[in-house]
Amino acid sequence: MRVINFNPGPAGLPLPALERARDELLDFQGSGMSVMEHSHRGKEYDAVQSEAISLLTELLGIPDTHQVLFLTGGASQQFAQVPMNFLTPGASADYLMTGVWSEKAYEEAQYLGKVRIAGTTVLPDKRYVRVPRQDELTLDPKAAYVHMTSNNTIYGTQWHWWPEVGDVPLVADMSSDFMWKPMDVSRFAFIYAGAQKNLGPSGVLIAVARKDFIARGRKDIPKIFRYSTHAENNSLYNTPPTLAIYLCRNVLAWVKQVGGLGQLEKWNREKGELLYGALDKHAGFYHAPVEKDSRSYMNVVFKLPTPELDDRFVAEAKKAGMVGLKGHRSAGGIRVSTYNAVTVDNVRTLVSFMEEFIRKNG
Amino acid sequence: MRVINFNPGPAGLPLPALERARDELLDFQGSGMSVMEHSHRGKEYDAVQSEAISLLTELLGIPDTHQVLFLTGGASQQFAQVPMNFLTPGASADYLMTGVWSEKAYEEAQYLGKVRIAGTTVLPDKRYVRVPRQDELTLDPKAAYVHMTSNNTIYGTQWHWWPEVGDVPLVADMSSDFMWKPMDVSRFAFIYAGAQKNLGPSGVLIAVARKDFIARGRKDIPKIFRYSTHAENNSLYNTPPTLAIYLCRNVLAWVKQVGGLGQLEKWNREKGELLYGALDKHAGFYHAPVEKDSRSYMNVVFKLPTPELDDRFVAEAKKAGMVGLKGHRSAGGIRVSTYNAVTVDNVRTLVSFMEEFIRKNG
Ligand SMILES: Cc1ncc(COP(=O)(O)O)c(C=O)c1O
Ligand SMILES: Cc1ncc(COP(=O)(O)O)c(C=O)c1O
Ligand SMILES: [Mg+2]
Ligand SMILES: [Mg+2]
Ligand SMILES: [Mg+2]
Ligand SMILES: [Mg+2]
Repeated sequence: MRVINFNPGPAGLPLPALERARDELLDFQGSGMSVMEHSHRGKEYDAVQSEAISLLTELLGIPDTHQVLFLTGGASQQFAQVPMNFLTPGASADYLMTGVWSEKAYEEAQYLGKVRIAGTTVLPDKRYVRVPRQDELTLDPKAAYVHMTSNNTIYGTQWHWWPEVGDVPLVADMSSDFMWKPMDVSRFAFIYAGAQKNLGPSGVLIAVARKDFIARGRKDIPKIFRYSTHAENNSLYNTPPTLAIYLCRNVLAWVKQVGGLGQLEKWNREKGELLYGALDKHAGFYHAPVEKDSRSYMNVVFKLPTPELDDRFVAEAKKAGMVGLKGHRSAGGIRVSTYNAVTVDNVRTLVSFMEEFIRKNG
Repeated sequence: MRVINFNPGPAGLPLPALERARDELLDFQGSGMSVMEHSHRGKEYDAVQSEAISLLTELLGIPDTHQVLFLTGGASQQFAQVPMNFLTPGASADYLMTGVWSEKAYEEAQYLGKVRIAGTTVLPDKRYVRVPRQDELTLDPKAAYVHMTSNNTIYGTQWHWWPEVGDVPLVADMSSDFMWKPMDVSRFAFIYAGAQKNLGPSGVLIAVARKDFIARGRKDIPKIFRYSTHAENNSLYNTPPTLAIYLCRNVLAWVKQVGGLGQLEKWNREKGELLYGALDKHAGFYHAPVEKDSRSYMNVVFKLPTPELDDRFVAEAKKAGMVGLKGHRSAGGIRVSTYNAVTVDNVRTLVSFMEEFIRKNG
């Protein structure tokens, strides 16, 4: 029996994507070997990677100006690799601070060049409960790029509008909300996202990059760290994580099959409304700290009246077949991660459990 | 029906390791989810990663002075990350050049500091057919490290002795022969190997590092690139490629179950003797360019009298259920990769095919 998985990442994946992997794990399409045993330069694997790229292109409507890259090292490596490529000597980059991951991105960039905080919603106690408004940003029109975190996995906030940055390239860590709904890719010079929330297993990172932007990245850094190297070699400069990319392909095929990003957005909004609806209805018991227009549809965070009740909530939910609800160690409380593979029904089950939990403990 | 897989990497994996993955792909140990859906910080995944480390430690006899790390980016990223950590300003590093991969390691290091060639066996036509002798090395006793490639995947040469480097830390890219036999880990300050030959799928790199060596790596580089970061966080600084590490664990468990590295060495030597025996016996037809005491037991390369015969050999072998035999595009000819998962019987089948091929075409 499969449990209901609210893990923050690595997270649950759509069952059909896993079943497909299981069914052909020893013999990929009659080739007599597993997909992970195929050469990354053979036609069998090439078809998989090409399909993953065309599915991403189709589902997101990626324009010709942009290119998909499969990279490794997680979003954490991009925190360093982005400034390595684009923070040329003498330049400065702007960072929008909305949570733990923005802070880490900013800290890594400091080892590589000049960085500025161009907006932050940090509270005196170091928490974040919203993203900034445009009029709170103090952008440098000469910045090498502006870096933002579209969804803040730990604090449960999400940007529901894109900052206006003029001609400055906009770079976004979308690790925890990539492909949660349709979007206009052309607003971004560089989007990156670890696969392990909405797309696949950990071990591969998807980037969607504006070709002219990455082409002007530094050439005096090692080849492996240049985005242009991976772009020129169609993500086959060195051996890619073939099995992880294959699993992403399976997930993307599922996304298309269920109706694409428009359908996922409908489900994701429905899940969010169910959860935030319950939280608002029982605001005296469940405390949801995030300001309404910054609420995340991927990570819904709240606290019960006491840490002991938080723990009991997690433990009893587990008995009821729901796992992954404990808040991040730096934030405490409860975090419900409702990535694309979590169904509306899964959330209904949790909401019933929340109602029941109040009846017993409220 | 599974084919006989002589791929150079990604390569064939032991069937029991794959079957284990398939059987529990949807439900890992009754947890109701796939291992790839588990949190990297949960106890279920932790047990897997810990077991992988203890199996490596036991099988290789890794001493307390050393530590196992799981990294990403492949060996190609280590080509840059090693000098990033250890080639401090003012220092110089020595490189031993024995093939394409040594050259790439050397080229990447040049972007980061001063490097010297302390030995090379390159021929005027750019090929390599042997590794150097100790008396051919001109080592710098003050070098930050000496870098070597233990097995040259493309040219089919392998070091069968370790260079004497005094007190200078010895760093080895063992991507294509890691764990082919027992070894004395203590001779090395830093060993690294992509998993996709002897250990698992692509997407994870195993390093065995001397603790005091990585502790003195540079601290003025981004945290994600410091080996010390990964050492201090037990390879959980950021999200590791959990599925790839799980598969390595399965392969390592198989290695132990069949008898450990002593047994693998016996099989690997037997496979090598079968193949080189056939090549020597039919030296007029099969041309094996590598000098005898540099012959690789992991990648056996040879050429037929004409490129057309090479192609026919590959095509007919494929019909007979043997794949992955085409030589690297930069070397041509035939390459038989006989990593740990290739059985003695697989090699016997190939040798019979080679004999038969001569009868028909010799
Ligand atoms: C928004 C965001 N950025 C970055 C990261 C770090 O990703 P990784 O561990 O893959 O480096 C995470 C991990 O949860 C995240 O949620
Ligand atoms: C000896 C050696 N080093 C390095 C590499 C590059 O490894 P990766 O593609 O994982 O970066 C290879 C790949 O075949 C190799 O055989
Ligand atoms: Mg955050
Ligand atoms: Mg997180
Ligand atoms: Mg080589
Ligand atoms: Mg190779």
